[in-house]
Amino acid sequence: MGAEVRVLDVEVQRRAVVELLGVLSYAELTAFDRLAEDARMAPTLAGRAALARMAAAEIAHHDRLSARLVELGVDPADAMAPFVAALDGFHDQTRAGSWLEGLVKAHVGDGLATDFYREVATFLPQPDRGLVEEVLADTGHADFAVREVRAAIAADPTQAGRLALWARRLVGEALTQSQAVIAEHDDLADLMMTGTGDLAGVGKLLQRLTAAHGVRMKALGLNP
Amino acid sequence: MGAEVRVLDVEVQRRAVVELLGVLSYAELTAFDRLAEDARMAPTLAGRAALARMAAAEIAHHDRLSARLVELGVDPADAMAPFVAALDGFHDQTRAGSWLEGLVKAHVGDGLATDFYREVATFLPQPDRGLVEEVLADTGHADFAVREVRAAIAADPTQAGRLALWARRLVGEALTQSQAVIAEHDDLADLMMTGTGDLAGVGKLLQRLTAAHGVRMKALGLNP
Repeated sequence: MGAEVRVLDVEVQRRAVVELLGVLSYAELTAFDRLAEDARMAPTLAGRAALARMAAAEIAHHDRLSARLVELGVDPADAMAPFVAALDGFHDQTRAGSWLEGLVKAHVGDGLATDFYREVATFLPQPDRGLVEEVLADTGHADFAVREVRAAIAADPTQAGRLALWARRLVGEALTQSQAVIAEHDDLADLMMTGTGDLAGVGKLLQRLTAAHGVRMKALGLNP
Repeated sequence: MGAEVRVLDVEVQRRAVVELLGVLSYAELTAFDRLAEDARMAPTLAGRAALARMAAAEIAHHDRLSARLVELGVDPADAMAPFVAALDGFHDQTRAGSWLEGLVKAHVGDGLATDFYREVATFLPQPDRGLVEEVLADTGHADFAVREVRAAIAADPTQAGRLALWARRLVGEALTQSQAVIAEHDDLADLMMTGTGDLAGVGKLLQRLTAAHGVRMKALGLNP
């Protein structure tokens, strides 16, 4: 392969943009659902309100993405539909069983997804690159989750091992589902291969994702 | 009794304001929960996003009320706590069993609650009166629920009777719970008696609530 520079066909690029906005739009909708569900496990009213607030932020992002899809002449529901099964599958396989599992999922799972989408966004033309980067801005998960999880581990250090295992399961499931999504969407796969350049580029992308994941795990007080 | 004019003690009024902001703040949090739950019953992705959007609006209102409580030197969780049992009781007793029941509950139940809180708000001093009126502004429920429910009844007229019965159950349960709330909160009860003037004033308030409820039921295509 080497340094062969590929340029995406305009129509392929347009379809890839629609696919990325579609998957992100549905991801925000499921994030809303899951955060709303996990909010009910909160041990305090303040924690419950905090998670509900994060859920609301996801919907604001969903709306921005949907509005852009409409601008591109695409029905948001049509753009989301191809990704419903994979994303629902991920959430069904990784339903949080406790308040802490929910927080780890919100921080570690969403963090990984966010990093991945942000990498893909750099391959997009404007204004979509800017829009994706904007809706991926932290909605306040990070600080809140880190504070709560660290406090829980400080109070009961045996939690750390269990939660680290849970985080590893999340990552495994996320990889399985994202491979399936990319394999089924040629334009998105094309966009990524063109953007990364070659397989070595894909490898570097995965290294960056893994490094950032490790930083997040350590911030929570968990072994990556 | 007659036309005796009563003026609330400043401290009693302050406590009544905190109680009203507390109950409303928790009402918005439970409304978020319930809308988020009902969103999952939506027959379409567009309907699901619409309900999620309404849920997000409730959280924005919750935040405004909580911020005002903090300004008044009160922990929002403390202000909400006394109302958790009554409001959770209402929602547990009236869990929507279908998408349409959820919409009727959102429109008829929230409409009634909104009218009631708005009446009480007129007895409040500024800036709290303005704040309550603002957070009670329609979050888009009305049009959406009316459109969906009317369409469903047009497609299957037998739905109308069942949904009207459901709405009557909601109103009965709401009356039971709100009487319990007022009976347990002397300052709120004092505020209402002072505001309405006397029992005749309470009677007129109930008449206004009933009339507005009838208008909402008819808009949905249901017999009040």
